[in-house]
Amino acid sequence: MAQIPYKIYLDESELPRAWYNLRADMVNKPAPLLNPGTLKPMQAEELAPVFCEELIRQELDNDTAYFEIPQEILDFYQMYRPSPLVRAYFLEKALGTPAKIYYKFEGNNTSGSHKLNSAIAQAYYAKKQGLAGVTTETGAGQWGTALSMACSYFDLDCKVYMVKVSYEQKPFRREVMRTYGASVTPSPSLTTEIGKKILNEHPGTTGSLGCAISEAVEVATKTPGYRYVLGSVLNQVLLHQSVIGLETEAALKKYDIKPDIIIGCAGGGSNLGGLIAPFMRDKIRGKLDCRIIAVEPKSCPSFTRGTYAYDFCDTGMVCPLAKMYTLGSSFIPSPNHAGGLRYHGMSSILSQLYDDGYLEATSVGQVEVFQAAEQFARVEGILPAPESSHAIRVAIDEAIRCRESGEEKTIVFGLTGTGYFDLVAYEKFHDGKMEDQIPTDAELEASLKNLPRVE
Amino acid sequence: MAQIPYKIYLDESELPRAWYNLRADMVNKPAPLLNPGTLKPMQAEELAPVFCEELIRQELDNDTAYFEIPQEILDFYQMYRPSPLVRAYFLEKALGTPAKIYYKFEGNNTSGSHKLNSAIAQAYYAKKQGLAGVTTETGAGQWGTALSMACSYFDLDCKVYMVKVSYEQKPFRREVMRTYGASVTPSPSLTTEIGKKILNEHPGTTGSLGCAISEAVEVATKTPGYRYVLGSVLNQVLLHQSVIGLETEAALKKYDIKPDIIIGCAGGGSNLGGLIAPFMRDKIRGKLDCRIIAVEPKSCPSFTRGTYAYDFCDTGMVCPLAKMYTLGSSFIPSPNHAGGLRYHGMSSILSQLYDDGYLEATSVGQVEVFQAAEQFARVEGILPAPESSHAIRVAIDEAIRCRESGEEKTIVFGLTGTGYFDLVAYEKFHDGKMEDQIPTDAELEASLKNLPRVE
Repeated sequence: MAQIPYKIYLDESELPRAWYNLRADMVNKPAPLLNPGTLKPMQAEELAPVFCEELIRQELDNDTAYFEIPQEILDFYQMYRPSPLVRAYFLEKALGTPAKIYYKFEGNNTSGSHKLNSAIAQAYYAKKQGLAGVTTETGAGQWGTALSMACSYFDLDCKVYMVKVSYEQKPFRREVMRTYGASVTPSPSLTTEIGKKILNEHPGTTGSLGCAISEAVEVATKTPGYRYVLGSVLNQVLLHQSVIGLETEAALKKYDIKPDIIIGCAGGGSNLGGLIAPFMRDKIRGKLDCRIIAVEPKSCPSFTRGTYAYDFCDTGMVCPLAKMYTLGSSFIPSPNHAGGLRYHGMSSILSQLYDDGYLEATSVGQVEVFQAAEQFARVEGILPAPESSHAIRVAIDEAIRCRESGEEKTIVFGLTGTGYFDLVAYEKFHDGKMEDQIPTDAELEASLKNLPRVE
Repeated sequence: MAQIPYKIYLDESELPRAWYNLRADMVNKPAPLLNPGTLKPMQAEELAPVFCEELIRQELDNDTAYFEIPQEILDFYQMYRPSPLVRAYFLEKALGTPAKIYYKFEGNNTSGSHKLNSAIAQAYYAKKQGLAGVTTETGAGQWGTALSMACSYFDLDCKVYMVKVSYEQKPFRREVMRTYGASVTPSPSLTTEIGKKILNEHPGTTGSLGCAISEAVEVATKTPGYRYVLGSVLNQVLLHQSVIGLETEAALKKYDIKPDIIIGCAGGGSNLGGLIAPFMRDKIRGKLDCRIIAVEPKSCPSFTRGTYAYDFCDTGMVCPLAKMYTLGSSFIPSPNHAGGLRYHGMSSILSQLYDDGYLEATSVGQVEVFQAAEQFARVEGILPAPESSHAIRVAIDEAIRCRESGEEKTIVFGLTGTGYFDLVAYEKFHDGKMEDQIPTDAELEASLKNLPRVE
């Protein structure tokens, strides 16, 4: 079809052997996590009861540019990496655009998304520390699935607290986790003090991510040999996810391609932060003239309508405070089907880059997102996850702009995962029953009133 | 980890550009399809109202060894081919076997299986003939999904008759088909004469594959510009599926690997026939000393307990007669979850090869299949389809035999697809509610009584 193949493969010698820590190149470093009691920066020893030692080191290190990827993790990456960088020839043709579109596809593994990149790293360090197991929460289930796979590989116990409404509505995700030997508990549950308290106060509750986090943290800190792990937002997660961007960079360089626009969906920021890492480095250094765009749902618009401030990471307000673009930890997004994008805050790294003007952000509605998803599926053959489809929407819009202006821009976007477990949402879309629920100004004002006071 | 990479990739120059027709090398050709009325071999003109012209030519040609793959199909194959040939290092290690295990993984496309290889070919020839659309039936949904994707690509209308019980129990499969623009009708339906007749006689019926075939054929023959297409059993389908075997052969040759045992699951025979095609050619020619094993479920044991005879291909007895290993067209297999393996008969090509002693067959129980599936998922990171897991079971058993004997055999098996839409079955397995239902001798005797009388 053309000189550049449909899929750009990397040879073994071209694969990343170290993660890249974007913080090392940032002009303004991301603000530190604060102790919610003292409001002072969290020290390693304060984090040690919750997180694994090596991961704390990675979390707090703003200076080391490269962290070598341990051989055991490289071995595991072989199962599903390098992920393909695909030239979207079929989509370009369907759109009649002179733009050149590429996507980095992270969905070709059983967890169905990029989450596995960090899950295997976190499981590895837990195992190395001699732990018996880890705990976590999951909403839509992508993270829980990825962590189950990783823990199974390293023979670690894995306790997943799954928001009760998802546990009941997404039994298939639960079964994948069980296949990998994880125990999955609907949250709130009677296995924790916080769970009992919430069930006592709200007997009929279907749970929330904030509550599931609180239960997972409680179990991790009370059970000898356990720690808590998290699939997004944290600096360490973006570090691990840099493997996405490094592979993308290597594939583009192979054919001497320079991106003009890079697009990724943004919930907590794990995918976007990983995809853009090396390109943002070059942009900061003045070596790359490139727009970098975060796409979020109109129903949960942290960047585009939030405030840059210290806030709680969880609804239960037990975790450290992070400075981030936030809608307030009490913000409850409407039931948007892109479960992975329903977080009230945003990675501190990305928040700082956005505040410094290196990163753009835009928000899109759910119906237009599914229209893009269906159009993409029909021509490119991949059924995308709703989260990923936010990036597809904006990539298509930019490509259409190129058709109108005649510009041959190179557009790269992150296709984070597949939508095999999101077909209830597709069904709603097909039946014309999907709608956007956009928060009013008054609602946002109310949830932002609860921000903690930090000088 | 070793000299042979975890995944063997093929360069563009190494990709097959022609399908291989195993019939050309068979010592005894497969028996021809017979007209159910005259009991004489079906001629092309008799098949023309039902099938596409070019596909009839492929169906009836026992002599041409290679059919060039049209460029349009090669373009589409680029989306998801070559599929990886994976060295199962992790599984080998877990089993502690000196055997070298490889699997050809066909699940990395949205249809989730190898079915897309033939679906795109059949859609292409329908489009080339100037047809408006095609009809088909689907049980578990893999074939219907693949055909929907293929028709969407060539802008063909696609009418899928889905067995009612599956339509209701597998709404997600249905939604994927709808995403690709197919119309999906639960069968039996009021849209056909045969459907009305069956609903009148059995008002509460949940349908059957045989009935869905009859409805799809009726609509194809009564609607101008439509033909009927089928995803397995037929010679043409095995021809298209030879792309699996040809890629496998190319990948093995690249590292000078000779297989000692090749294993594939067998329902109608589309995957097995495709995988083994070039290896069977070499075996027939005396150039390869290799065991080739078909694996079927104990609940539907066409090879191991069936009879080699002419039989109806459908329960409605409207299609041509095929000579095959069969359990009788009235045989109703127990609700085994490997829906793709619940066919009463078997490809005529494979049946002849089995009768001639070139092919072995074995049957396995459902519980042991899911045990193998879970073991495989945990170490190799892929959640396999129940159908594919039949091959995994036997590959693991052979590898364990090598551990006991110390033999370093090379085992190659076909991993036809993923199990993302089979999690109800996984759930039953996890909950200990799965059991095998093996037909009694009396049951088989009864269903074999209805074989048509052909001299």
